[in-house]
Amino acid sequence: MRNYNPAMLCDFYEFTMSNGYFQNGYYKKTTYFDVFFRKVPDGGGFAIAAGLESVIEYIKDFHFEKEDIDYLRSRNMFGEDFLEYLSNLKFTGDIYAVPEGTPVFPHEPILTVKAPAIEAQLIETYLLLTLNHQSLIATKANRIVRSAEGRGVMEFGSRRAQGESGAVIGARSAFIGGCSSTACTVSDELYGVKAVGTIAHAWVQMFDSEYEAFKTYCETYPDNPTLLVDTYNTIKSGVPNAIKVFKELGITNGGIRLDSGDIAYLSKKARKLLDEAGLCNIKIVASNSLDEYLIRDLLHQGAKIDLFGVGERLITSKMTPVFGGVYKLCAVEDDDGNIVPKIKVSENSAKITNPHFKTVYRLYDNETGKAIADQLCVYDETIDDTKPLTIFDPNEPWKTKTVENFTAKKLLVDVFKDGKCVYESPSLPEIQKYCLEQIDNLWDELKRFENPHEYYVDLSKKLWDIKQNLLISLK
Amino acid sequence: MRNYNPAMLCDFYEFTMSNGYFQNGYYKKTTYFDVFFRKVPDGGGFAIAAGLESVIEYIKDFHFEKEDIDYLRSRNMFGEDFLEYLSNLKFTGDIYAVPEGTPVFPHEPILTVKAPAIEAQLIETYLLLTLNHQSLIATKANRIVRSAEGRGVMEFGSRRAQGESGAVIGARSAFIGGCSSTACTVSDELYGVKAVGTIAHAWVQMFDSEYEAFKTYCETYPDNPTLLVDTYNTIKSGVPNAIKVFKELGITNGGIRLDSGDIAYLSKKARKLLDEAGLCNIKIVASNSLDEYLIRDLLHQGAKIDLFGVGERLITSKMTPVFGGVYKLCAVEDDDGNIVPKIKVSENSAKITNPHFKTVYRLYDNETGKAIADQLCVYDETIDDTKPLTIFDPNEPWKTKTVENFTAKKLLVDVFKDGKCVYESPSLPEIQKYCLEQIDNLWDELKRFENPHEYYVDLSKKLWDIKQNLLISLK
Repeated sequence: MRNYNPAMLCDFYEFTMSNGYFQNGYYKKTTYFDVFFRKVPDGGGFAIAAGLESVIEYIKDFHFEKEDIDYLRSRNMFGEDFLEYLSNLKFTGDIYAVPEGTPVFPHEPILTVKAPAIEAQLIETYLLLTLNHQSLIATKANRIVRSAEGRGVMEFGSRRAQGESGAVIGARSAFIGGCSSTACTVSDELYGVKAVGTIAHAWVQMFDSEYEAFKTYCETYPDNPTLLVDTYNTIKSGVPNAIKVFKELGITNGGIRLDSGDIAYLSKKARKLLDEAGLCNIKIVASNSLDEYLIRDLLHQGAKIDLFGVGERLITSKMTPVFGGVYKLCAVEDDDGNIVPKIKVSENSAKITNPHFKTVYRLYDNETGKAIADQLCVYDETIDDTKPLTIFDPNEPWKTKTVENFTAKKLLVDVFKDGKCVYESPSLPEIQKYCLEQIDNLWDELKRFENPHEYYVDLSKKLWDIKQNLLISLK
Repeated sequence: MRNYNPAMLCDFYEFTMSNGYFQNGYYKKTTYFDVFFRKVPDGGGFAIAAGLESVIEYIKDFHFEKEDIDYLRSRNMFGEDFLEYLSNLKFTGDIYAVPEGTPVFPHEPILTVKAPAIEAQLIETYLLLTLNHQSLIATKANRIVRSAEGRGVMEFGSRRAQGESGAVIGARSAFIGGCSSTACTVSDELYGVKAVGTIAHAWVQMFDSEYEAFKTYCETYPDNPTLLVDTYNTIKSGVPNAIKVFKELGITNGGIRLDSGDIAYLSKKARKLLDEAGLCNIKIVASNSLDEYLIRDLLHQGAKIDLFGVGERLITSKMTPVFGGVYKLCAVEDDDGNIVPKIKVSENSAKITNPHFKTVYRLYDNETGKAIADQLCVYDETIDDTKPLTIFDPNEPWKTKTVENFTAKKLLVDVFKDGKCVYESPSLPEIQKYCLEQIDNLWDELKRFENPHEYYVDLSKKLWDIKQNLLISLK
């Protein structure tokens, strides 16, 4: 793809609105925007936040080049003073966000921007597309990894990804969600997601016989070779040839890959043949349009699979290929620096936003370590976790629950302050480890693939009152 | 996203296989690979090929950097002689492909590579991901554009795209399929896909009142402003405020955008209010998770919409987010330069490949101009369209049809010859025009959204015989 400045990956209306803010004296107004989503993909119980590292790279580099300004000028819609302003623009605001790998829930901010109106407006598209895409893939990968019940899951989807970044950054997101490796070489080079692979049908076809193809491959890679056994006939030709070559070369730590046919049946048959040949440590890898449901089914049928290669259904999150994060104004500062909460109403009450500059606490039960609920608070509220706390359903406030013996942890961390990055990204393996630990802290009822328990995302009394008053004032 | 060399966007097995070809003397063997797909997304009757321009850029630039070689060396799997070979590698082969915007059908090559084994193998992933992604979006966009029955369709999906390239190159693909414009500014800057936009809810919320927000916007952009009218209440507040501002400022050529609620109802109501105010030329734009089915339904219900903004369901091809193009070896040259056809068999007969180095003819009826069938031929066959031609179903060869008074056109054009690009890409508007003309040449029965007629993709007698003989020899 051609080179471009990521700051230009921006909906055109962000430029027209920004020019409007500029021309009408609104551009120094401090604004607050939340990124949040309304629905977990695939009907799951939680999503996994990812994409913050890309957001940080983007914000650090945020600027406009001369050719960008020239392009904007060519549209004949923008004032020269605005273009001049843009050409010197840097991001000067604050960003708060949940760390990558954090399980997150509908209607809570996963990232909050505090910045002058134009800066906050111009970064909307890039932030959304980054967090949406990467959270989507991390969430999907985690579902698939959980279905594999401890077996490794390799991300094999580059060729079916939606564009280059779909493949490259998708592999990183899949690793956060728990995948062990990827087929995508450049994701290893860039991010250290280990790149692995087997062989293609082309390798087998290139030689005069399958036996010769296998033998040549194993001689070239005697350390842990995996042979694709379905080019001609898995059970009659592929597996026997693989066994013959493994035995002849004394290979005991390789694998075979099943990529078509009835994987459950073939894996059991292949395992039997391998075991009978004394090749008990040869692993069976399965691929072919798998997802969490097919893997669960295969294991339920007793398939003998050690490792899964998962491609298109992971890298595109095929069943739900959209993560619907939105970017909504939640407050503006007036001329005296007071933070004025803003709300977006809708006839659909699930689409009404939570106003104000907020912070989010996650409440953990001290006995079990499990997360009980998240509470959205006004930015300057704190939760005293030494005392019992009564939480309530924001839609049905008569439903209350008193929480005792708990720990309240802030979910959003400081990422940028006055335009400076104050956050140090953990390493990718650390992010994966953190993610899997945090998921361990969720109740199993949240982890069902269908009809999971709905996690509590509540509002503090103070925030709830502010929201109600805004709704009444707008009626 | 971090900078990287696209040549490294490659499945790791392509490197291990290439090293294997190299170590075992296969690397100078000339190979032939086809890109083809097996199923049209969304159950449609045809797909639209896109992505060739990206392929050309990639192939022209194909090389490995020192840091890529260093990374590969660090994996301790590759010979130094191979790494040395890679560090000097350029693409030296031939590429044949259908032009962007061509309607294409299952099982026919949309691109063919003739190249030394390693070169052909290393470009597999990039070619597939590029053609798969861009063809997917062009195909989906065209369905949506056809559903709009002549009304403009704007691509609005960047924020929900699967990564940066999903947004940026996705907008280009959507344009090929017939979209009129995009929200994605950088796609205009790079490719000339006109970037357009309206306003966001944030603009409206930023001001003390909706009226003030509308008025300020229209004063800033008096030429054709489009106002988003659903921030508070579409019919009670948004439309009346828009009308008031349009009247006060004498604006007659603007628009309003409906983004939530019952679009069919609201559009009729809004049209009535606008017309009663004498604002008959004010256009109504609709958005909100639309696709070809919802648009068809809205129009069927008499919705008064002039222009559609379509986001997530277009830019991710939400119902079918995967285009399943594959890259299969179809022939190799032996030491004497004879082309030896290769086949990949499968228990599933739809997965058996069409062997040999091939060319594709599309047969057009001279009377109607409509495409009748495509015929796959051996590379050196020609079709004499001055004589009747009997074609037959390759799976049920007793089903024959004799075609007369037709014109046979070669579908695949020369793109690279001996590593040199010999193809001049048309401009993007030319590609869109060509695409829409080619679709005009398809029978309406192919254009149904569900259960379309299945277009004939046949084999020449010579090719069919070669395939049968290969299948018999492998039994």
